[in-house]
Order: sequence, then C-alpha cells, then structure tokens
Amino acid sequence: MSPKALDYESLNENVKKAQYAVRGELYLRASELQKEGKKIIFTNVGNPHALGQKPLTFPRQVVALCQAPFLLDDPNVGLIFPADAIARAKYYLSLTTGGLGAYSDSRGLPGIRKEVAEFIGRRDGYPSDPELIFLTDGASKGVMQILNTIIRGDRDGILVPVPQYPLYSATISLFGGSLVPYYLEETANWGLDINNLRESVANARFKGITVRAMVIINPGNPTGQCLSEANLKEILRFCYKENLVLLGDEVYQQNIYQDERPFMSARKVMLDMGPPISKELQLVSFHTVSKGYWGECGQRGGYFEMTNIPLQTVEEIYKVESISLSPNVPGQIFLGLMVNPPKPGDISYDQFVRESKGILESLRRRAQIMTDGFNSCRNVVCNFTEGAMYSFPQIRLPPKAIEAAKRAGKVPDVLYCLKLLEATGISTVPGSGFGQKEGVFHLRTTILPAEEEMPAIMASFKKFNDEFMEQYEDHRGYSRM
Amino acid sequence: MSPKALDYESLNENVKKAQYAVRGELYLRASELQKEGKKIIFTNVGNPHALGQKPLTFPRQVVALCQAPFLLDDPNVGLIFPADAIARAKYYLSLTTGGLGAYSDSRGLPGIRKEVAEFIGRRDGYPSDPELIFLTDGASKGVMQILNTIIRGDRDGILVPVPQYPLYSATISLFGGSLVPYYLEETANWGLDINNLRESVANARFKGITVRAMVIINPGNPTGQCLSEANLKEILRFCYKENLVLLGDEVYQQNIYQDERPFMSARKVMLDMGPPISKELQLVSFHTVSKGYWGECGQRGGYFEMTNIPLQTVEEIYKVESISLSPNVPGQIFLGLMVNPPKPGDISYDQFVRESKGILESLRRRAQIMTDGFNSCRNVVCNFTEGAMYSFPQIRLPPKAIEAAKRAGKVPDVLYCLKLLEATGISTVPGSGFGQKEGVFHLRTTILPAEEEMPAIMASFKKFNDEFMEQYEDHRGYSRM
Repeated sequence: MSPKALDYESLNENVKKAQYAVRGELYLRASELQKEGKKIIFTNVGNPHALGQKPLTFPRQVVALCQAPFLLDDPNVGLIFPADAIARAKYYLSLTTGGLGAYSDSRGLPGIRKEVAEFIGRRDGYPSDPELIFLTDGASKGVMQILNTIIRGDRDGILVPVPQYPLYSATISLFGGSLVPYYLEETANWGLDINNLRESVANARFKGITVRAMVIINPGNPTGQCLSEANLKEILRFCYKENLVLLGDEVYQQNIYQDERPFMSARKVMLDMGPPISKELQLVSFHTVSKGYWGECGQRGGYFEMTNIPLQTVEEIYKVESISLSPNVPGQIFLGLMVNPPKPGDISYDQFVRESKGILESLRRRAQIMTDGFNSCRNVVCNFTEGAMYSFPQIRLPPKAIEAAKRAGKVPDVLYCLKLLEATGISTVPGSGFGQKEGVFHLRTTILPAEEEMPAIMASFKKFNDEFMEQYEDHRGYSRM
Repeated sequence: MSPKALDYESLNENVKKAQYAVRGELYLRASELQKEGKKIIFTNVGNPHALGQKPLTFPRQVVALCQAPFLLDDPNVGLIFPADAIARAKYYLSLTTGGLGAYSDSRGLPGIRKEVAEFIGRRDGYPSDPELIFLTDGASKGVMQILNTIIRGDRDGILVPVPQYPLYSATISLFGGSLVPYYLEETANWGLDINNLRESVANARFKGITVRAMVIINPGNPTGQCLSEANLKEILRFCYKENLVLLGDEVYQQNIYQDERPFMSARKVMLDMGPPISKELQLVSFHTVSKGYWGECGQRGGYFEMTNIPLQTVEEIYKVESISLSPNVPGQIFLGLMVNPPKPGDISYDQFVRESKGILESLRRRAQIMTDGFNSCRNVVCNFTEGAMYSFPQIRLPPKAIEAAKRAGKVPDVLYCLKLLEATGISTVPGSGFGQKEGVFHLRTTILPAEEEMPAIMASFKKFNDEFMEQYEDHRGYSRM
C-alpha cells in the first residue's frame, strides 16, 4: 500500500523543512534531563515567569475579576481587590458582549484596539487608527499571518537579519518562501550595514528571487542591539527605494538597558521623514504582552499595526483571521492593560510602578552581570546586551573541538551547548539556530535567571567553558575566527 | 513602480481565494447595522455567551484564582471562593512552571494532557496516550495545523461534507489544496451515503487528485445530525480501504438533543472494530471548550488526539507547534476542567451539575422550538437538530425571488438572509456559505438565543418569511426543489 497521508515520507515538505532551534535538540535534551531529575536552568526561551519573575499585581487582579464577573456583586470583593481593579474589570467587561467566554471580533475587541491606537499615538506623536490594528494570540501569530499573506511561492524572498530569531526562518520555510539573509556586524556591536543589505538584495535578484519584504528586530533578538535613528532612516529609505514591505518586530521596545539609544519605533521615524516615504512605505509593526516587564508569555496577547496598507488588503487579512474566529479574550485584556497602565493618583499606581521598575532595573543589572561574565571566560567575547532579553556571546572554539564535533556528526556549537547542558544544567540555544557567519560560533542565553542566582550561574558557565577550552586547545595561539 | 507586496493585486492568491461566510458579508452588514443602533441577534456563529449564556461558576473560580495566585495566601480568600476551587487552582498552578504567565510546552502542559487522556480513556473504554494529545488555541487552530501538514499542493484532495462548516473549505484554500465534496442527504436527515462517498473519490481521482484525508463533523455543523455507529463503521472501512486519514471534528460531542443515537467517538468505533483498522487507520480527533455546555469560546482552548500516527510525524507536528511557542495557558486550564469536572461529594458538585444540566436541557428545548418554528413557515422545511448548535432549514425560494437575486447580483440565499437581517435584526449565514446542492437554498442559524426570547424571534422570522414568500410567489404551485 502506498504511504498514508500522515506517514513521514508523505508529509508536506515545507513542514519538514521548517527548523526552530529555540525548542529544538537542546530543548528536547534538557526536557529529558529534567524528567530524569536534573535541575535545568531554561535560558533557551524568553520566558520570564518560568524563571521566577512575579506577575504584576494590578493586571492580574483585573483579569481575575473579568474571569469571575459574579465577584463584582459580592459584598466581600473589596476585601481582596482594590477599587481601581474592580472599576477596570467592569470597564473591560463593558467592552465585550458576553464577557471573556464570547468570541470577540476576529480583529479583537474594538475598545481595546482603541486603547492600543491611543498608546501608539502617545508613543510616536502621530495618531493611529484602530481599524488598522489587529489583536493576535501573541506577536508570533501576527508575524505568521502577514508572511502568509505576502509569500506566494519559492521565488518570493524575505530579507531577514542573520543572526535572527528563528520564527522568521521557520515561517518562511513553512509557507514555502525564500529567506534572503543580511548579516549584522558583530564587530560593530551587531549594527546593520546598509551596503550589506544592498548586496543581499542584488544576490537574491541574480538568483531570480523577488524580494518582497524586510524584517527588522529592534531591539535585536538574539543580538540585543538597539537601532539608532540614523540606521532606521537608512533602512526606511532602502525599503522605499527597493519597494519592500518593512516588518518591524518591536516586541522588546520596553526592554532597553542603556541610555544612548532609547527605543524609537520604525513608524515614528518613518512619519518623521515625511512624504513620499511616510505616505507610501508599507509597514507592519508587532508588539506583545510576553516581553517588557510584563513577561505574560502564557497569556498569548499581541497586536500588529499596519501603516500604508490598502483597505482591500486589510479586509483580506481580516477574512483570514476570521477563519480561526478570534484571538483569546483574556490576552486581549492584558494587552489593554499594558498599553493603558495605572495612572498617577490611581490606588494601584505606586505598587505598579514599584513592581515594574524593580523588574526593569534588575534586568539592566543582569544584562551587565551576564555580559561581564561571558567576557571573563576564555575564548568568549560578548557584545553588551543593549536591549531585549538575550546575550549572544561568540564562542571561539578551538580547531580540535570543531574536529571532535565533526566526528560526532554534530554542528560544533551544538556539541558545545550539549556539553554545557550536561555539565551545568544551563539550557541555551546554539548560534547555528539563529544563523551566523561561516566558521564562527555562538550561543544564545536569556538574561532572565533570578538576579541572586546569576553569579553562581556565570561561575558554573565559566568553570565549564574554561575546562572545555583547556581540553580542546592545543596551547598554540590562533587568531580570532 | 510595480505593485508593493501588500497591495491587493500582489497578495498570495490562496489568501484571496479563502472564503469564510460565518463572518462574511452578512456578518459585516450586521456589524454595520449594530453600529447604527439597530438591535442585532447574532445567530451567525456558535457563540453562546454573546447571547446571554452564563459561564459555569466553578471553572471560572478556578481560573480566576490561577490568574491571581497571590489570593491563595489571602486570609479572606475563603469568603468568596469555595475550598474545592482553591484546591483545584493550587493543583493547576503546580502543573505549571511559573503560573499562567509562562509559556508551557508547545503541546500544552503535560499534567493537563494527562487529564485529557484519562477523559478519553473513560469515554471510549480504551486508554489514550498523553504524548499523542496536543492542546491548541481552540479546535480550529488544530484543524489548520493538521491540514497544513497533509496538504502538499493543489493535487492533494480532502474529502469534506457538503454542507460543511467553512473552516474546512477556507483552510484548504489557504494552504492551496483541493476540496473534494461529498454530499449529505437532506431527505435522509443529513445522513451520509457511502455510495456518494465512493463517487466523490472516483471523480476526484479522474481529475488527477490524490485524495488524502476525509473530514467528518459529528454531530454535524451546520446540519445538526448525529452519526450512527453503523454509519461510522462504514466510514472507517471506507477510509481504511481508500488509504485516507480520518479527521474527526467532534467539538459538539456534549451537544446531543435526542436519545436514539448518543455520541460515539470515531476512535471508540474504530478501536471496537479491531485489527487491521484499529491498528492502521490514521485518525485525528478534535475537541474544544467553546461548545458543549461550556461555551467558553473566547478562552480559546482545544485539543487534538492522534491515533496510529507515526512518532516521526508527531515530532514534525510538535516542531511546527513550537514556532508559535505555546497555546494560551488559561485556555489549557479550562480544558483540564472540562475533562475533569467536579465529582460527587465535592463542594461545588451540585452547583456545577445544576448549571450544566440547566444549559443542556434548555438547548434541547430550544432545538425543538426552532425546528418546529421553521417547519411552520411557508416554503421552509427543516430537519430536527439532533445535536450541535444549529438549525439548517431549507428555504424553497420562488423562481421570482431567484430572478430578483440574479438581477441584484446576489446569490439567492444571500439576498434572502440580507432581507431577513434588515427586517428583523436576525443575523444568519446563507446556505451557500456551507455548500448545498445546485438550486437548493438554506440558511444556518444557531439555536442559542435565550429560551425566553425564542418564541418572539421565531414569530419575527415567520412574519418576515411568509411576507417574503407572498411577495415573490406567483401563486401557482411548484414542486420541492
């Protein structure tokens, strides 16, 4: 009998091609070890609550009340919920028809899309239109939807930074498109060189690929850099000239750990530039409740905002969103709370500020501890984590280690990360999962372990690394790869 | 300049082709009318809470506590939450690493997948393996994922009932496959004739299409029928013989309004049949918290269970799920609660039974009121709604109405439903959105309006319909189309 439709050999080839290292071989091995009783530090994915970050109190109070609307009539509710949380829960319930258990409009609740538009307007200094904002189950689902709309086949190319967060490479494979890489410059603190971009596009066109869109991740994942306004302007001019849609992954916009380059949205810079770019360049920007000082990953709340996208296209995207009915409603409410947090004078304001500042300041210190820690290790160099939630140190593997990996049939940085995992319980992602230049090796780790555990984790890393290097180095000098 | 990637003319053609009438022209017009202040009865989508169904208290208490874990230490918590809800919240939090704010495993929390497996085991009398159960953001997302795994291109066909819930047609279009229709027999209470199936497959093969999978919706959507065990056996034998994966959409398994044919899962019937079918036929079954007496649509909780699917394929599906990280965690907890509700002796048991029985019994009465109502109308015939949440009456449109629709450039049942909407505020979906035989017209309505409003709604429908028929009939008899 011929293979069945769900036998491996007869599956959709694009499904097989998609690779997603963040939950790949290393993660699976870490999960096994955990089952066997080993203590694992999961730094493979930006999942703050899993590493002990406490949720912000006010938004959780509001969503709990929305889940249990019968409490709003309970005479004792005021004993355990503050009045502003009760008021806000009533407000959000008033935006729904039937509460959290009813599907919303497939674009999300109109009242929350309005809150998002007001947030974007305040942030950028230009009003935003709620009709061009769609709420999604986390930012990833929005990215997938937009890429599905753009990609028509394997001759359609998407410019993606390398190293990149593999959502992009995986989704492009899944929808049968072509990834067109542009390299970030590690020696220039992961900056984006516009000449490199031009070259990438020229190479792709030479191969017959129509480059349709460009992805930027700002602040960078896995690289942690923050783009400057000048760099963003270059990118926008480039996209305009080359007729590319710009996809702005800005999910780390609240995670900034230096003061020289505060976050600027691609949208603000574009609108500042004036016509024709401000009126014609097609931009889709993504944001989420999973990052920032919220870290509400498990709630799956996000949005995308479209600028200069024709109405007819917006309607097509709406139609496709409607096939799966609606994003989850509690996640929408978290998003509303994120873009419209307590204000000065509100009962919960002081607590909210204390909690959120505490998280951000600790993340800033942890970024420093981690970068310093990596740079104190033998054959490890690491750019400072300016933003986002990751360090991406270069691991200068000795030739003998590379040979050993080849003999074991492993990519060299995969071997290194597996040995690190077995020795220390630290679960990272090999740089090869994000893309890197030939012969250069990295790993990605989040900066999310609890601050008090950070020194011990870095000491454990250093011990492993330095012994690894000792084992594989031939004690002759070699130049940086 | 050539079109931009998000200009309508340059979008992915499969995106444009996808049609989803449940939120199509009628829904959009109803939303407009609502904005203008008209009272709309949204019976276009099975969204019980939006029409006034109250959520079950116990699950909402548990999820509210999981959202606000700090309450578990509050000395006053016992004043507004029962002890069993508090205990259950603690249990679910213990299944997570970091609570509801942390991504779970991409397949869902292992502890909840175990609860689902136990539920399936009790239901079918055969144990189920949690490793073959994946939790999803509602059942739709699971269906989309499986179809994406199966469909390789436009020569791959999926057998879909007609009339069908358009999730299937839309998703098959979106992924570039071919829909192979098989017709349900309206005169046999929407039964499935196996000869018709054979003919459909033969026709498709003649056109060069490889039929890869068959979808059944049991109880039926939009048609409301419940498949008999004998019919399920025929279907399973057919799928085995024709080498088809069976996709069992069983989201309405708790919504049964007659006693002759209680729900039987495709899995139970298959396993009862013994080898080779029980060992070889590939089956994927879907379920959700959105239906039943839960109606928790906005929470987006669902699962699929795979039977006889090779491990290597399960791993590919896991990999693709991991690209979007994890299903929302509150929705997973609702699913856990659905498959493991309060037990006799629990504090909340009596209330839970009272609430859930109240909803189911009312749905049963409403199914009867609605079917009787339709059958009292001129030129309307309607099979009894045996299960699910819909009535799908045939509207025998007079030739003059059909001509009028053609002149207006509308499909005849679209015109009828639009006029119904404008006259009464009842928002339905035309039968053409689900597929129907040539020259035969229907509409789909949910049976979800509040029971006390049902008589007035049916009276309003009858008044509209009978006047419509009066207007368009030429007062000569004509035979049933």
